[in-house]
Amino acid sequence: MLDQIGTQLKKYQHEAFLFAGHYGIEKEGQRVNTQGDLSQTPLPFTQPHPYVKNDFAQAQAEVATDYFDTCQQTFQQLQGLDAVLLRALPENEILWPLSMPPALPSAAEIKIAAPTAAGLHYRQKIARKYGYQMQMMSAVHVNFSLSERLMRFLFEVHYHAQFNDDYIAFHNAAYLKLTQNYLRYRYVLTYLFGASPLAAANFSTAVPDHLVRSLHASRRFGYVNRASQEVSFQSITAYVADLQQLIDNGELQGPREFYSPVRLHGNSLAELESAGIHYLELRNLDIDPYAADGLSATTLNFFRLFLAYLLVTPSVPVEQAPTVLVQAAAQNETVALGSPLGVSRLQPQLQEFMQSLGKFAQDFQAPIELQQALQTMQARVVDYRLTPSYRLSEEINGGSLQQFALRQAQTFKQQAIAQPYQLPGYTQLAADSQLLLANAYQRGLAVRLLDEQAGVLQLAEHEVIGPGASTRLNSQTAVMASQNKLVTKKLLGQAGLIVPAGAEYTQVATAMADFADLAKQGLVVKPKRGTKGQGITVFQTAPTAELFKVALERALTTGTSALVENYVPGTVYRFLVIAGRVCAVAECMPANVVGDGRQALTALVVRKNKQANRGLNRPLRPLPLDGQTDFDLQQQGLQRSIIPARGNQVNLRLAATFATGADAVDVTADMDASYKEVAVAAAQALQLQVAGVDIVIDNLYQPVDAAHPELATVLSVTARPELAVHEAPYFGTAQPVTAALLDQLLTK
Amino acid sequence: MLDQIGTQLKKYQHEAFLFAGHYGIEKEGQRVNTQGDLSQTPLPFTQPHPYVKNDFAQAQAEVATDYFDTCQQTFQQLQGLDAVLLRALPENEILWPLSMPPALPSAAEIKIAAPTAAGLHYRQKIARKYGYQMQMMSAVHVNFSLSERLMRFLFEVHYHAQFNDDYIAFHNAAYLKLTQNYLRYRYVLTYLFGASPLAAANFSTAVPDHLVRSLHASRRFGYVNRASQEVSFQSITAYVADLQQLIDNGELQGPREFYSPVRLHGNSLAELESAGIHYLELRNLDIDPYAADGLSATTLNFFRLFLAYLLVTPSVPVEQAPTVLVQAAAQNETVALGSPLGVSRLQPQLQEFMQSLGKFAQDFQAPIELQQALQTMQARVVDYRLTPSYRLSEEINGGSLQQFALRQAQTFKQQAIAQPYQLPGYTQLAADSQLLLANAYQRGLAVRLLDEQAGVLQLAEHEVIGPGASTRLNSQTAVMASQNKLVTKKLLGQAGLIVPAGAEYTQVATAMADFADLAKQGLVVKPKRGTKGQGITVFQTAPTAELFKVALERALTTGTSALVENYVPGTVYRFLVIAGRVCAVAECMPANVVGDGRQALTALVVRKNKQANRGLNRPLRPLPLDGQTDFDLQQQGLQRSIIPARGNQVNLRLAATFATGADAVDVTADMDASYKEVAVAAAQALQLQVAGVDIVIDNLYQPVDAAHPELATVLSVTARPELAVHEAPYFGTAQPVTAALLDQLLTK
Repeated sequence: MLDQIGTQLKKYQHEAFLFAGHYGIEKEGQRVNTQGDLSQTPLPFTQPHPYVKNDFAQAQAEVATDYFDTCQQTFQQLQGLDAVLLRALPENEILWPLSMPPALPSAAEIKIAAPTAAGLHYRQKIARKYGYQMQMMSAVHVNFSLSERLMRFLFEVHYHAQFNDDYIAFHNAAYLKLTQNYLRYRYVLTYLFGASPLAAANFSTAVPDHLVRSLHASRRFGYVNRASQEVSFQSITAYVADLQQLIDNGELQGPREFYSPVRLHGNSLAELESAGIHYLELRNLDIDPYAADGLSATTLNFFRLFLAYLLVTPSVPVEQAPTVLVQAAAQNETVALGSPLGVSRLQPQLQEFMQSLGKFAQDFQAPIELQQALQTMQARVVDYRLTPSYRLSEEINGGSLQQFALRQAQTFKQQAIAQPYQLPGYTQLAADSQLLLANAYQRGLAVRLLDEQAGVLQLAEHEVIGPGASTRLNSQTAVMASQNKLVTKKLLGQAGLIVPAGAEYTQVATAMADFADLAKQGLVVKPKRGTKGQGITVFQTAPTAELFKVALERALTTGTSALVENYVPGTVYRFLVIAGRVCAVAECMPANVVGDGRQALTALVVRKNKQANRGLNRPLRPLPLDGQTDFDLQQQGLQRSIIPARGNQVNLRLAATFATGADAVDVTADMDASYKEVAVAAAQALQLQVAGVDIVIDNLYQPVDAAHPELATVLSVTARPELAVHEAPYFGTAQPVTAALLDQLLTK
Repeated sequence: MLDQIGTQLKKYQHEAFLFAGHYGIEKEGQRVNTQGDLSQTPLPFTQPHPYVKNDFAQAQAEVATDYFDTCQQTFQQLQGLDAVLLRALPENEILWPLSMPPALPSAAEIKIAAPTAAGLHYRQKIARKYGYQMQMMSAVHVNFSLSERLMRFLFEVHYHAQFNDDYIAFHNAAYLKLTQNYLRYRYVLTYLFGASPLAAANFSTAVPDHLVRSLHASRRFGYVNRASQEVSFQSITAYVADLQQLIDNGELQGPREFYSPVRLHGNSLAELESAGIHYLELRNLDIDPYAADGLSATTLNFFRLFLAYLLVTPSVPVEQAPTVLVQAAAQNETVALGSPLGVSRLQPQLQEFMQSLGKFAQDFQAPIELQQALQTMQARVVDYRLTPSYRLSEEINGGSLQQFALRQAQTFKQQAIAQPYQLPGYTQLAADSQLLLANAYQRGLAVRLLDEQAGVLQLAEHEVIGPGASTRLNSQTAVMASQNKLVTKKLLGQAGLIVPAGAEYTQVATAMADFADLAKQGLVVKPKRGTKGQGITVFQTAPTAELFKVALERALTTGTSALVENYVPGTVYRFLVIAGRVCAVAECMPANVVGDGRQALTALVVRKNKQANRGLNRPLRPLPLDGQTDFDLQQQGLQRSIIPARGNQVNLRLAATFATGADAVDVTADMDASYKEVAVAAAQALQLQVAGVDIVIDNLYQPVDAAHPELATVLSVTARPELAVHEAPYFGTAQPVTAALLDQLLTK
């Protein structure tokens, strides 16, 4: 019936449409302590939470991603959510990495999750009906919906006549084809991904005493309804009718109690056919104990290929459907309950399937990552010792996988908490975005990545946050004022704050004419508009005319106008002000290395740049080794080739700017309150609610007062301060400034 | 005593310091009707107003500038304020351009200004004491204070010892020297600028029956105290003592009743010596009837040179001061009451002075504009027929200057109102800034130009406004979202608005790979981040691969990422939304010319670009004739060399963008309300209070509704909409959007 899909796509060279689709993932997992005992603590997130909730038991956490247009985004979010969950767990808690639960206590000791009274009632009923052991199994569910572009295209070029211009009918037919083929070939998935070879000793006396591929995916021992609760997959009509009858009979409490490998979702069961199927819930994947998130990117990519193939491969003929589906169940059972220690009884079928799949992948030019995933899976068919079920059999100790499971879980948790300033899945985002995302997930905000490349997030459906803590808390005009150094200085001056004396120049010649007058002391030359330290040159002592000219040219390349200011000696501190309060203060130590008397400067730079929290999208920026470095070294009478003496600090930049590799040293607790008042006043002068204020201070313990305002010179104010430098400073205490920002943003 | 100033400055090559100083200007003028009768209407500004108030009479307006660091800025503001005042006057009112008042009605008919009861009482008393005629004279006052940099420098390098480290004493001494020399040489100013040769017939029987240079600046007929009310200028102490005694005696009501050519200002009279003089009020300039603002830039530049010279030229020796000052008064009287129709009796002294001044200007490298002003004034000394008093004598008709005065006043008013979208003095600012400035002056807001080049204004001490109507009404994050076309489209889509379908590409190759699929219809290629129409290419029909590639490369040169969108046919309209209300709608007609069947395309462009409201810093941008024009013409099957047929419109750009020369055609009243709702929804989706929303609409009279949302496609939203295109459209009604913005900004 729908066997022209491949032909049509090839005809129009639209093979790529086939690999599109929308994905969401749900992953369950038992929280256990480091001994493997079920957690007795509540889920560490306030409920309701858009992504993490309790499943059957309080100890069983379910992580559910949003729906995305690409698998990759879905997987990213799964990784991020998992990391946030692991970080939030008590120190001695981990996530059990297997579908089969750990050794369970008695039923009475298992706390059933009770989000509502009705929820509790529902769970108590299913526990009685199926046994609490079954309910304690965990799985990965993939929610899949077809690409609208693909469906519309096929309908327009070929299927509209056949379906009497009824798009929904065509669309439902495609989902039915997919569903039937999924059921038909699910044994392949069970072979490749089955990872529940045995149960804990006290799980059930019914389970076989030999190892199998997947208890969880088997009809006999798995997560299934009673035998009497059968639903037909021959047609949508039959599916709806059967399921509705089971519900009406009281055999099922609702569609959610239907434990089939595939569940069809739409507006409602009654409207499934008329309004159309929205997505398929594919429910038969075991938790992958070798993947940090219970699911690997490779598995997911194979899934994409598998689903695309199911759409192109011939449909189950209508009249043969009953037979085929019964046979498919039997095949799956054969694979699931087969021994993982040898070749499957369905090896010829598996080989044939993988061959067809390979041919399809080539014919339809599947994306490279899908082809790579295919290769990995083909290898599992060739050699059963590569399947997870076999690999797990090797890990059994004293008849149990407990030791292995606990070890894996510990590793995954360590990975998640090792770099608190990074969020797995999102390490390609700016450090601040990763912090915001983690914080948002942690507090249960729905998050959309509006622009990953630009670092634009949307929290709780309405709060847009951009890079550099851009929020609605600052105004357009305040941002503009802070980006214009001339305006900034005027506004600070109006507020009675001390700023470096200086003048503006638009031409090198004009500035050179004033050189004699200017160059009586150290100078700073910088573009009037400029960010991230670009085009700034610091002369700690009066420069020569020649160097001054170079600096001017550099500043005028970055901007159309340059400011020449008196250099103010002292240490630069960055004050992060949020809503009139200083949330953190960090000394800004210009990019530097400390000598060991052996290594050359360049080697020291390479070494320091390898630190985990330094680099692109890390809290600290890489140390620079460029023309400006040479210029600045020369000013200090140094050059790249030197071997700095032991303990000797060499500055690679004279300008103290985090964007050019400066180190942040937290001094929040040490800084005298009077300077914090200056920072707050500076932010206020610019009408900024969120600001990074850079102040030069001689002695942070000696208060500044009205008699000596010159003790604090305000160098600059940014409306886009970095958060990460305070969250992961080079030295000192991490300051929870991301939380402070979100608190401010969300309580207004 | 202070005769080392020049030597010291030359020694350190700091001559330039001498020409610095701070200036403020006050200018009085009678409001009259076009027949020359005193105005009976109140001043058209709500009082108190920071810049414009009533002087003695209700008809007499006083415009007072802020204090600026350069003469130029002061003069700019004077020009701007004058224009705003002239525009606000009733249609038949003008500003009398002479120091001597027009023919006055009886005293009873002159309405004395009464800002307060005390103010009225004060004025009634001076009217009785000096006669209302004298009070009705007008003048220009220059407020001058010395450069702090100059004073500090001189004090440090030379004068600190002489003044026992008492900076204020030194500073006061410098002001005293300046004052005495000003009085001594004021006859030069009276000669050069005297412009009150006669009074109206009914002014007073006392005035001479022959022409003079300046009645106003004369002791006998001018704006002076009674002879008994003498104040010494021999020392500050004497000045304060004498003035205080006159006040204590009740001879003067306060320092403001002291009508000397120079008045010293400080915190208060009592503190004048101890706290120091702040500035000098130089009060003897006649209104210049040949200058639109009663004062020309040339006069002001001469003043700068004159004052600098007075500081360097020898001081009046202490012991000779009484004699010198008496002699100076006599000399001034000689010049003031001398006939303008011949050489002055003080011609030798005038010549000698101008020679010294010329030598000084050369020696101290006076800025070029001061030297030019000097030349103009030297010519007046060489030939008395160039003095204003002589020139005015040529304009007398029936014994009166009334006809001349009314003619001049009409001309000045016409100049001020001719281009309502420009503000004289500020035409170098962006059109929007000029509108904001004019509007702010009009409503009595104090204004500071924080950055002229960048167009940053500060209103009422606290409201900062940047270019493109940047205010605190928009937030940082909303602006960021609107600048990112991907984010914009997502947010609009979330709000259920229709946006052009499209995809994002970061590489030409990737986009070319999709070419076959994309190029089935017209396309728009644009940078993901981009402003002012840069890098946008419109293909109204499907492009060739070659042209598509050129467009991609162009977009990827402007930004790091390009959007390829389906072209939406229809007319583009710009909706200006302020706080949830559409304030104006303009059709955005792509840059175009209309043929006349004779002229070539290029000639038509040149002609249209000459229109007054088009050009740099004008409401409409110049028409482009560049590579993109050729590209777009080519798409239309045209080229630069054509002669468009009569009435035939040729588009020089296919993209409808004001920044690239589009015409604005106001359709605020015609646009169906349903589209205005779409615009408001788009601004809301981006959380913008101030937004320019570009919507493609087929028929502005046909409502858009939920059944056919595609009737309105939102192309883009900007957080920096231009105001001027609505205030001065190419066709149609001007919309007062600047006032709407300020209303919104100031009422919150």
